[in-house]
Amino acid sequence: MKVSGLGEFGLIDVLAELVEAEEKQGEAWQNLVLGIGDDAAAWQCPSGCQLATIDALVQDVHFNLGLNSWEDLGWKSLAVNVSDIAAMGGLPRYALVSLALPVDTEVNDIIFFYQGMLSLAREYGVVIAGGNISRAPLVFINIAVYGVASSPSHRLLTRSSAEPGDKIAVTGSLGGSAAGLEMLTRGLHFDPETESLLRQSFLRPCPRVKEGQILVSSGVQAGIDISDGLVSDLDHICQASNLSARLRVDQVPVAACVQSAFGTTAVQKALVGGEDYELLFTAPGEIIDNVSSLLKPVGCPVTIIGEMFADSASKVVLLDRNGQPVRLSGSGWDHFAKGEV
Amino acid sequence: MKVSGLGEFGLIDVLAELVEAEEKQGEAWQNLVLGIGDDAAAWQCPSGCQLATIDALVQDVHFNLGLNSWEDLGWKSLAVNVSDIAAMGGLPRYALVSLALPVDTEVNDIIFFYQGMLSLAREYGVVIAGGNISRAPLVFINIAVYGVASSPSHRLLTRSSAEPGDKIAVTGSLGGSAAGLEMLTRGLHFDPETESLLRQSFLRPCPRVKEGQILVSSGVQAGIDISDGLVSDLDHICQASNLSARLRVDQVPVAACVQSAFGTTAVQKALVGGEDYELLFTAPGEIIDNVSSLLKPVGCPVTIIGEMFADSASKVVLLDRNGQPVRLSGSGWDHFAKGEV
Repeated sequence: MKVSGLGEFGLIDVLAELVEAEEKQGEAWQNLVLGIGDDAAAWQCPSGCQLATIDALVQDVHFNLGLNSWEDLGWKSLAVNVSDIAAMGGLPRYALVSLALPVDTEVNDIIFFYQGMLSLAREYGVVIAGGNISRAPLVFINIAVYGVASSPSHRLLTRSSAEPGDKIAVTGSLGGSAAGLEMLTRGLHFDPETESLLRQSFLRPCPRVKEGQILVSSGVQAGIDISDGLVSDLDHICQASNLSARLRVDQVPVAACVQSAFGTTAVQKALVGGEDYELLFTAPGEIIDNVSSLLKPVGCPVTIIGEMFADSASKVVLLDRNGQPVRLSGSGWDHFAKGEV
Repeated sequence: MKVSGLGEFGLIDVLAELVEAEEKQGEAWQNLVLGIGDDAAAWQCPSGCQLATIDALVQDVHFNLGLNSWEDLGWKSLAVNVSDIAAMGGLPRYALVSLALPVDTEVNDIIFFYQGMLSLAREYGVVIAGGNISRAPLVFINIAVYGVASSPSHRLLTRSSAEPGDKIAVTGSLGGSAAGLEMLTRGLHFDPETESLLRQSFLRPCPRVKEGQILVSSGVQAGIDISDGLVSDLDHICQASNLSARLRVDQVPVAACVQSAFGTTAVQKALVGGEDYELLFTAPGEIIDNVSSLLKPVGCPVTIIGEMFADSASKVVLLDRNGQPVRLSGSGWDHFAKGEV
């Protein structure tokens, strides 16, 4: 079978099973807290819980040098990894940057790329501590970010800890990244403020690091960042928690600039667009109310968009404003699935 | 200027300067022990010193699927990263594996790749704790390995701590990997034992993890693993320590199988072939004698091949058996230098 037949997530399941079948002997296994299958890996060390994640950006798959400046690309490449640490409620600390480049790449472009990364690194207290440079026929970026669980609780947000009856909530608003990509790809024009917001959403996402820490310290246990798309990432929580989810489409916080620019197709972008890097989480309603009141002062809205329920089918059920099921044509980003980007 | 004009190491210098120019504020900067420029990054945490490294293997640059089986490729991909931790005298603990694959890659091949990684992981006590899968037009492998400094000293081997008068020594024997590559590329045939040794050297290198720990615990401070090539890696020590090195070419331990198979060109492979993943280190003679007697029982020979001397030109001087300078045509592996692989 080809990997296209199995899909990205099917392949990850197969590989996770292979690793899981190992004899779990030795210190590294004993200290492992979370292996393959969450936003970041986690292990215990005497001083607390360590986190690590890796992500790839491949030219013409994840980015297009006609749309992204090198500086924006630097920002975003580091942002997507920092967001994986945020999705665990952790603090990002160090980054390792592996670049594979064509030999005719301009040195200045790589300097711009680093300047973009350093802008984000500075804002989030991350140090670029090392990396690797090699040759390749196209630009290939891999960044590993290392972090720690937020003190003093050392608790983590995981995909597998949702409970039946939990409300589902999301930070911020959605759809901006997909809308920004569409605007840039199709050369669309809107009013300057809308254009600027959409461009920002797509090119310079801001990982929800401090918000993630407030979630864990408030007692939220289940969370993920929205990289693949709201429906797809909620599905990851369902699969990992062995539960299903009811998602009220009319409650989904579509970004106002997306609504004004794209009208009726805006909600689709919020549901399946991906790359918004907001936090999607589940918890009892009173915890979410508390989180909401803590995040309002830092300018981060929290919206309840559904609830988890016991059902081993582990599926996401979309409901309209009348509570009636609705269907979607695509459900997010799978790297090998047919007909997807 | 193109990156080909600056070269891999020139580009790394430029990027290291950019990072170095940052204001070093916050916890991550305060705890950084080693940033860009060594085999691994290192930072302090309350329970000790943490290590992290990342390396890339690009199809048709670092490997050729006609020469490497997927299982061998898995072994080697993880081995080169584990070797970077060994080169610091550290203990490898966790690996994150980022694979970018063409959509028509066979799932079974990726399973073989994982089985190769898991064989090495098992032998070295490493857990594959996470990763990433994406789509790409060719196979890109990026692995990040996390480790810890060897207890109880928490000392590290670094490139920058060589001292004038230090003897230069190397573990094991050299040239096997380059000779194995040449044998496979040119379809050469030798006696079965030689073929097996050359194949093994190129396809299944064994990182010197326990040897690295014995080095640090014996008081060795300067070290590197031989990935770029003996001369090139010794040059890295010279540059980082701001010293020069005299290398006695006739003392270099050329692997016997390389000598028997390649005769007069064997020494060239040992000097510039690279990918042997032996440890190259410097220390006062009495420390090296001690290391040598500790490593003999574990079957690892140690050979003194030269000495460091004060000279800010930071160059490697090759000497023949009469102490006369000799020249080399190529000095190792630089990903962007003209005329190199």
